[in-house]
Amino acid sequence: MKIVIASAPATVANVNAGFDILGFSLSGLADQVSVRTIPEKIVRIKKIIGGDDLPLEPDKNTAAVPLLEMIRGERLSHGFEIEIKKGIPLASGLGGSAASAVAAVVAANQLLKKKLDNQKLFYYALLGEAVASGGLHGDNIAPALYGGITACLKDSEGKFQVVPVSCPVKLYCTIFHPQFALETKKARGVLKENILLKDYIQQSMHLTGLLLGLQSGDYDLIKLHTRDVIITPQRKFLMPFYDHFLPDLEKTNSLGFGISGAGPSLFSLSKTKKDAHQIQELLLVLSKKYKIPGEVYVAQVGLARPTITFVKVKA
Amino acid sequence: MKIVIASAPATVANVNAGFDILGFSLSGLADQVSVRTIPEKIVRIKKIIGGDDLPLEPDKNTAAVPLLEMIRGERLSHGFEIEIKKGIPLASGLGGSAASAVAAVVAANQLLKKKLDNQKLFYYALLGEAVASGGLHGDNIAPALYGGITACLKDSEGKFQVVPVSCPVKLYCTIFHPQFALETKKARGVLKENILLKDYIQQSMHLTGLLLGLQSGDYDLIKLHTRDVIITPQRKFLMPFYDHFLPDLEKTNSLGFGISGAGPSLFSLSKTKKDAHQIQELLLVLSKKYKIPGEVYVAQVGLARPTITFVKVKA
Repeated sequence: MKIVIASAPATVANVNAGFDILGFSLSGLADQVSVRTIPEKIVRIKKIIGGDDLPLEPDKNTAAVPLLEMIRGERLSHGFEIEIKKGIPLASGLGGSAASAVAAVVAANQLLKKKLDNQKLFYYALLGEAVASGGLHGDNIAPALYGGITACLKDSEGKFQVVPVSCPVKLYCTIFHPQFALETKKARGVLKENILLKDYIQQSMHLTGLLLGLQSGDYDLIKLHTRDVIITPQRKFLMPFYDHFLPDLEKTNSLGFGISGAGPSLFSLSKTKKDAHQIQELLLVLSKKYKIPGEVYVAQVGLARPTITFVKVKA
Repeated sequence: MKIVIASAPATVANVNAGFDILGFSLSGLADQVSVRTIPEKIVRIKKIIGGDDLPLEPDKNTAAVPLLEMIRGERLSHGFEIEIKKGIPLASGLGGSAASAVAAVVAANQLLKKKLDNQKLFYYALLGEAVASGGLHGDNIAPALYGGITACLKDSEGKFQVVPVSCPVKLYCTIFHPQFALETKKARGVLKENILLKDYIQQSMHLTGLLLGLQSGDYDLIKLHTRDVIITPQRKFLMPFYDHFLPDLEKTNSLGFGISGAGPSLFSLSKTKKDAHQIQELLLVLSKKYKIPGEVYVAQVGLARPTITFVKVKA
């Protein structure tokens, strides 16, 4: 019997003005899904390690739903048994549900007679992510599946495109993950239906500056435009530590910081590993000072990709 | 006595989702400004050729205001006499006021003891453009001054950055200029103060797709995302021909089309010169069919830059 184990990395989505679009992968934090085929055309969740609150019903689980859809969509003659090992903290804003969905499709793909391309894997993973976020948002799925920095776009017909955002320079990311959960659905629910035209224009300038800064490796441009005048101001009340941390963060060499995904984690970009570690030290100090217990990680931006391991077991 | 004659090209600004940000220069259409120094610290407009409606009062003229500001800002000990030759149709949405402002500062700069850099010239030209558009909008000024495709950004402190948008492939532009004028201030006035969050997200996806498509030379991506779900829907009633032309334009090889600047001109992007000329033929047919008299041009995107000519005259 063959078991395939795939892991998919944590991701930072939104990246301020890149709301619902931009994302990048983070090394060091990943979800892992083991998959084997079973004769029944179902998905059976054998075990979830490190995610006691996660649903064991396949049609509510972000790793199982993509495989249910795959069985149906690809007219498979078999099903899958899966085991999920959560390495990414739940409801942390670090793309845990996307990582589980991506790991599941990447592993299952290795067990198919006719391998699917990334575009199809993206689509199935997206359907899993929807269980968690309440909509088809691919900004975590895209970097978890493709690695690097990605833009997840929808055209006027609703069709998705994942486009790599090249960056010729190294970037490092410091993550502060406060020890409280925030459901994506809740963070999405607080957003008003309307925004000001003038804010849209300023936000578009920030989005343009960030994209052009990344693509040309222009640190100054990245620093000027890793900003958000629309989403963060509406959401930060859900992360009260944000405003407390702000003044000290602004004094560092950070190239820009913000809420990771829907929060509550905070990300900060740096030019060098040294800068990223200095910000890590500061965040640990602030975490104590304001009594917001949490963990702080440093990772290189976009380096992580899904990995696959094959295990042969005697049946 | 030395006279400097500078010309600056017509430009297409906005480019759909790049509202207030993106622009590119057009070859074949330009405004020309001749400048000589005069002892008085004033700007005197000697003549305006091809712009009978344009104000001769220096403080209301888009070419003269930048030089008035330059005299003050650079503490010059002299003034300028200028002659303006309009090659770009007035209130056409093709960046005529920006071109006059840019031509004026580029020419005047050649008469300064200490030459100014493009950043300073941009700033002075911007103050001239404001007379016409009612605000500090640099999306026509930037490509008229720098050439190419440009992004004109403002950071959170209101400071402008002009960033080149590189494009490794050739692009051609077909312009339909209907023979009616539309003031930028009027076209700006019709925009509502609020927009929908969902439109902002879709527009950001189009902006990202267009930028990444241009920078990677991906024609498919450009075609999918040269769209505008916020500004054009609100403004097109000012250009009633737009909806009439749309169905036929959509059947062509156009990579995307839209309103040039604040209108009324229409632009369409093409992969090849041949495609651009086919669209030109179509637009001429539509112009007759719907009784919208106008002119149609074809130009290579971003090729044009300001040019300078020196003339020595016996005093």
